[in-house]
Amino acid sequence: MKKLLFLAALPVFIGLTSFIAPVNDRPIVIVIHAGAGNMDRSKMSAENIKIVTDKLNEAMDVGHKILENGGSSTDAVEATLNVMENAGIFDAGKGAIFNQDGKVELDASIMQGVDLKAGSVAAVMTIKNPISAARAVMDHTKHVMLVARGAEEFAKSQGLQIVDNSYFYTDGAMNDWKNWKAREDSIRKSGHNSIEEKPNHFGTCGVVALDKQGNIAAGTSTGGVSFKKPGRVGDSPIIGAGTYADNTSCAVSCTGTGEYFIRLGVAKDIASMVLYKGYSLQKALATALDKVKNLGGEGGIISLDKNGNFAIDFTTNAMNRAYIDKNGKRDVQIFRN
Amino acid sequence: MKKLLFLAALPVFIGLTSFIAPVNDRPIVIVIHAGAGNMDRSKMSAENIKIVTDKLNEAMDVGHKILENGGSSTDAVEATLNVMENAGIFDAGKGAIFNQDGKVELDASIMQGVDLKAGSVAAVMTIKNPISAARAVMDHTKHVMLVARGAEEFAKSQGLQIVDNSYFYTDGAMNDWKNWKAREDSIRKSGHNSIEEKPNHFGTCGVVALDKQGNIAAGTSTGGVSFKKPGRVGDSPIIGAGTYADNTSCAVSCTGTGEYFIRLGVAKDIASMVLYKGYSLQKALATALDKVKNLGGEGGIISLDKNGNFAIDFTTNAMNRAYIDKNGKRDVQIFRN
Repeated sequence: MKKLLFLAALPVFIGLTSFIAPVNDRPIVIVIHAGAGNMDRSKMSAENIKIVTDKLNEAMDVGHKILENGGSSTDAVEATLNVMENAGIFDAGKGAIFNQDGKVELDASIMQGVDLKAGSVAAVMTIKNPISAARAVMDHTKHVMLVARGAEEFAKSQGLQIVDNSYFYTDGAMNDWKNWKAREDSIRKSGHNSIEEKPNHFGTCGVVALDKQGNIAAGTSTGGVSFKKPGRVGDSPIIGAGTYADNTSCAVSCTGTGEYFIRLGVAKDIASMVLYKGYSLQKALATALDKVKNLGGEGGIISLDKNGNFAIDFTTNAMNRAYIDKNGKRDVQIFRN
Repeated sequence: MKKLLFLAALPVFIGLTSFIAPVNDRPIVIVIHAGAGNMDRSKMSAENIKIVTDKLNEAMDVGHKILENGGSSTDAVEATLNVMENAGIFDAGKGAIFNQDGKVELDASIMQGVDLKAGSVAAVMTIKNPISAARAVMDHTKHVMLVARGAEEFAKSQGLQIVDNSYFYTDGAMNDWKNWKAREDSIRKSGHNSIEEKPNHFGTCGVVALDKQGNIAAGTSTGGVSFKKPGRVGDSPIIGAGTYADNTSCAVSCTGTGEYFIRLGVAKDIASMVLYKGYSLQKALATALDKVKNLGGEGGIISLDKNGNFAIDFTTNAMNRAYIDKNGKRDVQIFRN
């Protein structure tokens, strides 16, 4: 009787196995960026190129491993961004640029395409990993966005690591701030109101990922633009501007002059062009960047759909970017080819 | 010779007049809301209905007068919202609901469809008229959004009126907070983490307007949802979520459970449905509200295009709303007809 039961159960077991097995064959993809800007190739040392390239590879591998092991795209996005936030070489977490007051103020958001859940924090000064705080807002509150002190208090209550603002400081960001401050002071002396110069480098970090469950997610983490006013919020923590994810269209993360991306609702616009106009990701990204350019802005975008198709585009000279596609092919680039 | 010159100039003068004259015939429209909610008609006194109705008329007339005099839709939106922020009976400016800490935290945004310029403030506690601060961010910074202390410092530097947080307090908001606090305390005692109850009334204020230059604008001002976490930002100050304006599609202002409106990027989505799918405003609003409902949310939306067509829709029992259309027809409503 026991043997009979076992034999009767066998097809069910085989059935289950054959149902589960294809999941492992399903495509996984990760695409990341660490900002678009007008870096001069001739002025970037081979050593610095290696530092950036190595860190992009390291961050991407952390996320890809999670996807390989069957983890969620949301987990992959968060973990990859954690590596970039801790790196000290990008404009996110440690290494972020300073605001006018000489302080670091950070923004981040995350969104998952399966249920449109999203979380965001902005203008936070003491949360070591803003993307994890955004994740906690998504997972543990009925809200989507918390800012400033309220976000910091919440992150603390969630047991996230709290640091002094000076933790984020790097020599690079300090020198950048000193240069801006000197220019601002000299402009003010000349009778003008304020500096109107455009920042020439953006180091915002972003990730889009596809997991074995067929779900996409997107996340973005940043320190914003150089010499921003205290309290300035860019597109990165704005769901629909710098970050969006919807399984029915695509996952998007943007970098660039955030104000233009907010005014155009770029991330949501790309999802709408894909869904409503049937645009390919390539066409949607190019169209969105054209609109940004027409308003006077520039930047870059990464995007990914649930079938593993992805697109990367930018209007600046360079964009820190990397991917591992559904065939396992890997690429890391900084400058235009 | 002088007579000849005069005669020669006459057709030019007549030509100019006939060029200018039609501007005065061009349609002007204003549509406003002061929140959608599940108010019980039988429980609202005739006196209270009159107070709300009178204030909606007063606010709308201020904006309409500006439009009649050839002022911009942006000016009309700001001035109308100023009246509502000062009224003490809506969830915007004086009269706004309290957060968990028993403080008022305000959000507002404004956008103009002619050039997609936008301004926004969020989580501000001392700015008497948040919509004017949002306007100042748009007009006098290179940023779109400022939050918390940074936004307050900026508003002060612009000469906007700064008040103590207690200025915003009303008995209604205080009683609402006491009820929430009592329920929260009792829920915590019972071992649950936090109150999960949905607020049953939203009093967010919003305006869309069309001026004689053919330009549309939108603005939204709010105190957010009852018993929100400190630092919580809803859809109202998010360009693309609670507010959007683009002359090529429409101007939009939303009210409701803001988190759902952010996750769907409702205001931008409506503009995209109009632009990319050719939907009428009515169809775009109904489709957007269906999406909100499917996620578990509810609320209301007003929208207007540059030809003076407009739409109002809501999924709640009631929505404070009023309009003066291009023929001068006026209507003010609270409940469903």
